Amino acid sequence: MPRHDGRAADQLRPLTFTTNAPGYAAGRVLAQLGNTIVLCTCSIEASVPEFLEGKGQGWLTAEYSMLPGSTMGRKARDRAGKVDGRSVEIQRLIGRSLRTVVDLSKLGERTLWIDCDVLQADGGTRVTAISGAWIAVHQALTVTASKFGYDPEAILPESVAAVSVGLLGDELLLDLDYREDKDADVDLNLVMTGSGRLVEVQAGGEEATFLPEQLQEMLRLGKQGIEEIVEKQASVRQ
Amino acid sequence: MPRHDGRAADQLRPLTFTTNAPGYAAGRVLAQLGNTIVLCTCSIEASVPEFLEGKGQGWLTAEYSMLPGSTMGRKARDRAGKVDGRSVEIQRLIGRSLRTVVDLSKLGERTLWIDCDVLQADGGTRVTAISGAWIAVHQALTVTASKFGYDPEAILPESVAAVSVGLLGDELLLDLDYREDKDADVDLNLVMTGSGRLVEVQAGGEEATFLPEQLQEMLRLGKQGIEEIVEKQASVRQ
Amino acid sequence: MPRHDGRAADQLRPLTFTTNAPGYAAGRVLAQLGNTIVLCTCSIEASVPEFLEGKGQGWLTAEYSMLPGSTMGRKARDRAGKVDGRSVEIQRLIGRSLRTVVDLSKLGERTLWIDCDVLQADGGTRVTAISGAWIAVHQALTVTASKFGYDPEAILPESVAAVSVGLLGDELLLDLDYREDKDADVDLNLVMTGSGRLVEVQAGGEEATFLPEQLQEMLRLGKQGIEEIVEKQASVRQ
Amino acid sequence: MPRHDGRAADQLRPLTFTTNAPGYAAGRVLAQLGNTIVLCTCSIEASVPEFLEGKGQGWLTAEYSMLPGSTMGRKARDRAGKVDGRSVEIQRLIGRSLRTVVDLSKLGERTLWIDCDVLQADGGTRVTAISGAWIAVHQALTVTASKFGYDPEAILPESVAAVSVGLLGDELLLDLDYREDKDADVDLNLVMTGSGRLVEVQAGGEEATFLPEQLQEMLRLGKQGIEEIVEKQASVRQ
Amino acid sequence: MPRHDGRAADQLRPLTFTTNAPGYAAGRVLAQLGNTIVLCTCSIEASVPEFLEGKGQGWLTAEYSMLPGSTMGRKARDRAGKVDGRSVEIQRLIGRSLRTVVDLSKLGERTLWIDCDVLQADGGTRVTAISGAWIAVHQALTVTASKFGYDPEAILPESVAAVSVGLLGDELLLDLDYREDKDADVDLNLVMTGSGRLVEVQAGGEEATFLPEQLQEMLRLGKQGIEEIVEKQASVRQ
Amino acid sequence: MPRHDGRAADQLRPLTFTTNAPGYAAGRVLAQLGNTIVLCTCSIEASVPEFLEGKGQGWLTAEYSMLPGSTMGRKARDRAGKVDGRSVEIQRLIGRSLRTVVDLSKLGERTLWIDCDVLQADGGTRVTAISGAWIAVHQALTVTASKFGYDPEAILPESVAAVSVGLLGDELLLDLDYREDKDADVDLNLVMTGSGRLVEVQAGGEEATFLPEQLQEMLRLGKQGIEEIVEKQASVRQ
Repeated sequence: MPRHDGRAADQLRPLTFTTNAPGYAAGRVLAQLGNTIVLCTCSIEASVPEFLEGKGQGWLTAEYSMLPGSTMGRKARDRAGKVDGRSVEIQRLIGRSLRTVVDLSKLGERTLWIDCDVLQADGGTRVTAISGAWIAVHQALTVTASKFGYDPEAILPESVAAVSVGLLGDELLLDLDYREDKDADVDLNLVMTGSGRLVEVQAGGEEATFLPEQLQEMLRLGKQGIEEIVEKQASVRQ
Repeated sequence: MPRHDGRAADQLRPLTFTTNAPGYAAGRVLAQLGNTIVLCTCSIEASVPEFLEGKGQGWLTAEYSMLPGSTMGRKARDRAGKVDGRSVEIQRLIGRSLRTVVDLSKLGERTLWIDCDVLQADGGTRVTAISGAWIAVHQALTVTASKFGYDPEAILPESVAAVSVGLLGDELLLDLDYREDKDADVDLNLVMTGSGRLVEVQAGGEEATFLPEQLQEMLRLGKQGIEEIVEKQASVRQ
Repeated sequence: MPRHDGRAADQLRPLTFTTNAPGYAAGRVLAQLGNTIVLCTCSIEASVPEFLEGKGQGWLTAEYSMLPGSTMGRKARDRAGKVDGRSVEIQRLIGRSLRTVVDLSKLGERTLWIDCDVLQADGGTRVTAISGAWIAVHQALTVTASKFGYDPEAILPESVAAVSVGLLGDELLLDLDYREDKDADVDLNLVMTGSGRLVEVQAGGEEATFLPEQLQEMLRLGKQGIEEIVEKQASVRQ
Repeated sequence: MPRHDGRAADQLRPLTFTTNAPGYAAGRVLAQLGNTIVLCTCSIEASVPEFLEGKGQGWLTAEYSMLPGSTMGRKARDRAGKVDGRSVEIQRLIGRSLRTVVDLSKLGERTLWIDCDVLQADGGTRVTAISGAWIAVHQALTVTASKFGYDPEAILPESVAAVSVGLLGDELLLDLDYREDKDADVDLNLVMTGSGRLVEVQAGGEEATFLPEQLQEMLRLGKQGIEEIVEKQASVRQ
Repeated sequence: MPRHDGRAADQLRPLTFTTNAPGYAAGRVLAQLGNTIVLCTCSIEASVPEFLEGKGQGWLTAEYSMLPGSTMGRKARDRAGKVDGRSVEIQRLIGRSLRTVVDLSKLGERTLWIDCDVLQADGGTRVTAISGAWIAVHQALTVTASKFGYDPEAILPESVAAVSVGLLGDELLLDLDYREDKDADVDLNLVMTGSGRLVEVQAGGEEATFLPEQLQEMLRLGKQGIEEIVEKQASVRQ
Repeated sequence: MPRHDGRAADQLRPLTFTTNAPGYAAGRVLAQLGNTIVLCTCSIEASVPEFLEGKGQGWLTAEYSMLPGSTMGRKARDRAGKVDGRSVEIQRLIGRSLRTVVDLSKLGERTLWIDCDVLQADGGTRVTAISGAWIAVHQALTVTASKFGYDPEAILPESVAAVSVGLLGDELLLDLDYREDKDADVDLNLVMTGSGRLVEVQAGGEEATFLPEQLQEMLRLGKQGIEEIVEKQASVRQ
């Protein structure tokens, strides 16, 4: 069965990373995967959380938010103590994923603040955020390297990227858009490094279960997608 | 004394309104005034606040927020009950200004939700938000006109626009950017309709006071700036 | 058309400032303008906000609140993170207005805390608060002068006062009470110093717009009202 | 040992209840006990909490707050979710005490909102609040009787009043002011009806304990004080 | 009239204290009074609140909470700023009661954190919490005595225990369970030391009042109950 | 290398499920895995969230919390709007896992409230919670079956269980306790049904990455552990 937008089952949506996106953060990237658009920024602050003070190492933390106009039907802002559990889960995932490839011991007592703000949401916002955030971190480290006297390649020796894979009935599809995602039985969000090591594997569904063999297929398909994204990241970074 | 960016005292920064900005709101405009960039969206919800239920008329409300990466030095998000007084003041101003030109009695029981998210902040974000929001409302009404069976021109018979004027020492300057704004003694934020009527006049300083004659000059300069913005709005709207 | 309470269009309501109002703050004034009653207190704390620590100068901050019984129909308290946008706007205005006439560099590392609590609300609470708060600050500085070794007249070289003016249809009225205020098309809140310089000009309406000529008239009428208030302040202060 | 203000051990401070205190609530009383001043208001709302809807009976609820300027050293407002445990405890006590003497079944589906705002705090604010609140309720019921068609004497058949007693070393003192209260080992807050029945007995200390015989003495002294207050309430109510 | 569970009017429910309850706190006790079960833990933290820093003495604070499954009909958790006034009142009572018997000056700059979590609620949870918390404190001090070099018996020279007494119509009943409690007119919560001194006396009702003679009877009955509890505490502590 | 507690690499800690745990919820289970103890309750409420009202189906939601005394070093409660991101993530996982095996369409308009409160935390609290919660749901449905007229086996046709697997250096270990967990490079939390289908797969580390082959081994080991847990669940349920 062909996909509604004509893609093959193992085909990513068009992907672009635009550096020099709006703002004054040290790193700022507009990551676009099909119709999903996420503004990823990386700000560098000259302090660390209290539990790290005086230890000579850095920290990285992430926040994720959807702009009210990014979805069909306005999304209310996260305000006044009302917490969106989904946002909390996603920003923890982004933070963990990036920390895996950042050598915080070489950063000095600084915090990398990653902000991923979704401007347009058409499925895959969390994976787009991770892939884009990596470029924002890379850019932020590069532009501040001489000022802070550190080596960006030592702090960030390799890349990290993420992709989603879905199971709809018996079909496995790479990189679901929103229309596919809301019908999917099971979702895999896969995060890997540029060198092919696993960072995070999160698979599950709201109501459906899946077979170990299906997990294998999903992992295989995701790995293929990530290799493409890694290549794209490499080309931007140059 | 020439301005740091070469502008004349009565010269606006370059101004553009880009419709079809990212997102799925009915109206969405990227308003750019010099280096200040604000994403203005207008979503239409099929309900009104409780105090208006059953009265057959509509409502308009506005929210204003700065993305963390929009400023030099990351701006913490408005979260967890901590309120930013400046944001509250600005979003109330945006709401009042737009309500002045919208005939809510012809909207039906619907709410126009205006969201102004600052992507890049270089002074004048509130006035850019107002001028851009008007276009977003116009677009939202136009694209939904046949679906909801109303007449956009009747609901929104005229435009509204805003500009800032500053007093630095003895000099009056139109449309301050951030570098000028932080040195200004007094600020005027002026909101007017396309037909030249006053909507809001807000003038004051943190430490300085001013003479009635200076207020007159500021109003004259602001009026001139607004006429330019109104023209620009008219050209986009066609 | 005569006003409902028999006043002339340019006539203030009876105004009194009672010092030695209840409480233990250094300055405490009961300001009464017609039926509007505001308790204005000024407490002096021996510390400044973090961003000013070690700079040798002081700070002034204001809070505004309405007691639940001050209005027709009980007003719910500002509690549990629910913020009243109007209160935020008013307390920012009070703070800015007073800071304009206080020389914080001569205060030492102290904070002037101004609290304006409305006991009875019949229109014009924010302007009554500003005029009364100035006397509370004056009293607070005077009674602590010998203890803290500063010169109140150097810290507070001149007075600040505020008044409202309204436009109802074509009529301009000085000092609106609640019954007039809810019918007014446009409101001007005007803050001026004792020497006749402008501090804040805030004019606007919920639905109506106004002509530049009308603004001029409103400013003229407001100036006249403020001159009366300034005289009254001077008489209390002696 | 004579008391610092010359009172006998069993002597109340001067007590006055001023009706027609500021505000627009149906009942409003300024209760003054020595230097303690509490504004007690009673507003009547035409609704009941959800758990009582449709049951044909009324409700009574109380809030207690101290104005920032009411104490030596400014008291921060209860805002932004930070709860003051002491205030919670006191407002629950006020509510329970008043509910004991109000026949809610005869009130109709209305809520009596009692607000006790401390203007000047010199010890005994909670007991002053209870004694004053009873008069505010009485006044509120009386002025609305013909409008709502109920009988105030049937709803509020008797009065309630409260007083404090303290134990300092071996001495028992009626009606502690702040200077005595902070040195007291044990406090009794006693609430009784006009007819001499007990409503609430709360006795305890922060560090000290007491003997059953001392409790008896404290109760006896408190009863005597309450009888005086009840008489004063009766004289105001006429 | 016999009680529904066959107890005599002056009979406690079966009472047990189980030490070594689940968790890693220094002291942890499962206190069971009839069907009421409260987990009382005492954790020792090596710091004190800011207002005590550098004074060389300790602090004790308590929290009380009911698990959602502890009641008929799930009890919502205390979250997101919504405060349960009853819980606040109870945890303040627990804290005060325990502080009365702890000599904080001999504790060093440490905080005793008492947590009382109700696992099963059948009336009398606050008094069970107090009686159990004392054992938890005793255990916590004992197991840490050699590590911190203090003398538990000096810090905690005597015990504290609590019990409830109710008035139903004309009948006085010791230790109400939930079924009795919801029908009771008046409740007394009585806290006493092991040596028979009073710590807290709290008596009152939601709608009913009571006579001084009835208070005497309730105190007498409560004293008898507490003597039994004190004995039980002593046997566990050995 | 032998494990510190003598277990084989593929050996679970002793596991018990005790039904009739404290409380009044319909289902209540004390789940103990080694030294980890979680109280799992299932309450049934006769309503559904707003978005499901009138649709004739049920809902299931979960909350997870750690008691303050459950850890070494007291854990502060989730209060006053401060959210613990880890708790949010875990309770979302518990909810999703259980919803996978519950047929909500056969429940009627009821909500299953699952509460997992950790009494003692020694690693693996989330997986213990899931395995125990399933039994609590089973018990709750069984005891209410005749009252609500539904068939528990139709609503809950199969079981769900969870286990953790860790990677320490090159070693794979089943069911990490706290001491192992804090040294683990990578964690897998695996949720499966009784019939061997996958429900959730979550693998990742704070700093380490892993190879696809290692994921396979972890999945194999986890599956073996789950089979044991499923058997234990089946024996309890009879």
